[in-house]
Amino acid sequence: MSSQAQKKAVVLLSGGLDSATTLAIARSQGYHCYTLAFDYGQRHRSELQAAKRISAAQGALEHKVVHLDLNLIGGSALTDMAIAVPERPLASIGEAGIPVTYVPARNTVFLAIALGWAEVLQAQDIFIGVNAVDYSGYPDCRPEYIAAFETMANLATRTGVEGQELHLHTPLIQLSKAEIIRQGHGLGVDYGLTISCYQADGMGRACGRCDSCLLRQQGFIQAGISDPTPYYR
Amino acid sequence: MSSQAQKKAVVLLSGGLDSATTLAIARSQGYHCYTLAFDYGQRHRSELQAAKRISAAQGALEHKVVHLDLNLIGGSALTDMAIAVPERPLASIGEAGIPVTYVPARNTVFLAIALGWAEVLQAQDIFIGVNAVDYSGYPDCRPEYIAAFETMANLATRTGVEGQELHLHTPLIQLSKAEIIRQGHGLGVDYGLTISCYQADGMGRACGRCDSCLLRQQGFIQAGISDPTPYYR
Repeated sequence: MSSQAQKKAVVLLSGGLDSATTLAIARSQGYHCYTLAFDYGQRHRSELQAAKRISAAQGALEHKVVHLDLNLIGGSALTDMAIAVPERPLASIGEAGIPVTYVPARNTVFLAIALGWAEVLQAQDIFIGVNAVDYSGYPDCRPEYIAAFETMANLATRTGVEGQELHLHTPLIQLSKAEIIRQGHGLGVDYGLTISCYQADGMGRACGRCDSCLLRQQGFIQAGISDPTPYYR
Repeated sequence: MSSQAQKKAVVLLSGGLDSATTLAIARSQGYHCYTLAFDYGQRHRSELQAAKRISAAQGALEHKVVHLDLNLIGGSALTDMAIAVPERPLASIGEAGIPVTYVPARNTVFLAIALGWAEVLQAQDIFIGVNAVDYSGYPDCRPEYIAAFETMANLATRTGVEGQELHLHTPLIQLSKAEIIRQGHGLGVDYGLTISCYQADGMGRACGRCDSCLLRQQGFIQAGISDPTPYYR
C-alpha cells in the first residue's frame, strides 16, 4: 500500500538502552517511526522522560505515552512497592527462574496497544527491543512467544482481514548486551539519554546494583565502550 | 493446583448483555469470578456503572476497572467523537465490512490485561463474551483469533512456562442473540441492569437506533422475552 519511502513503524520505547537501539535500527531500515511509551505505574518513572528525549533525538514523527494502571493488578517488583527490587551478583541472574521484576503479561499488553496504533496509522510494522540472550527469565521475551503474537495479531485486526501482513520486528532478540551496544553506537545512539535502572532516582541516576544495571555495566565493558550512566550510589 | 471448588476465572465485563450472560455461565460452571471492566474513553460511559452493578448482582469476588486511554489512538466511532455512530437498518449491518464502531485491537488489549490479572490471581481461566454470529464484522471476535490468542497467552506467562494451561472461554461465540438471552434468562440474569447501546445517555437509557440496540431488540423479540431496556427516544 505504502511505498518504500513512506513505510511506517510503531516502535515501543521504554527509555532504556535496548529500545533506544531498536529505534535506531528501525530508522536505519528506512522506517518513519512512531514511538510509544507506557506510564504503567512503574517505580522507575524517569524512564518516561528518557523515552521522550530519545524519541525527539532520533527524529520520530510522533511520541505517545499511554497511561495504564498495571499497578492495580500488581504481582511485580516494578509496579508493587511492597516487593523489593532484587540486588544480587551478576552470575546469579537468571538462575532462580522468572524474576520478581517480571510484570505479568506486560509485553502482551504493550504490543496489543501498539497493534491498535499501528492499525490506525496503517503501519504494518511494529518494533520491540526484547532480548532472549542476556536475560532469559522473562517468558514474553522468547522467540516462540513473539511468533505467536504475530500470528494472533494478523487475525486480530482490519489489516489482517484485508490481506496486508503485520510484522513484529525484534532486531535484538539474539544479541548479547555488548552486541546491542556496539550496534547502537555504530548508529549514533546517545546512550547518555537512556535509563535502564529499575530503581532510578528522580534525576535519572541509576542504582548500579539491580539486575538491569549489572547487565548494562557488563555490556559496556564487553563492548569496550565507555558507560555514560550516572549513578547515585 | 487449585481444587475444583476453588477454581478462579477472570471475566471481561463490559456492562452489556453478552458479558453479563458470560459471567452467569462462568458462575454456573463453578468458577469464582473476578470481573474486569475498562474505562477506555468510550462514549457510552454508563456501561461502566452497569458493569459494576452486574458484578455485584452476580456475586463476583472482585471487580476492577482499568483506565486506559485508547482515545489517544482513535480510529473508532466509540472513542473518537468526530466519527458518528452509524444508524442504519438492521438488515444492512455487517454488509459493509468492518464497521466504524470497531475499536482497533480492543479485544487484544482487554484480553492482554485480563491475562496479567489471571497470572497474579493464579487463575487459569478467562471468559470473554465475543460472538461471531450476529455481528461478524469485528475481526477480533472470530474463533480463529481466539484460538491464536490462547496459544500466544500460553507462551506469554509464568503459567505457561510452569506447565499449567491457560484457557480462554468464549461460551457465546456460536450463539445467536436470542439464544444468548434465553440462556442468560434461564440462569437468572437481570438484563435490566445491562446496557448495550453505543450512545447511551447519562441515565443509562439506550438510543434504540445504533447497530447494538437493533441487534439487542431483535434478540429479545426472537427469544420471546420482554425487553427491559429503557430508551431515550
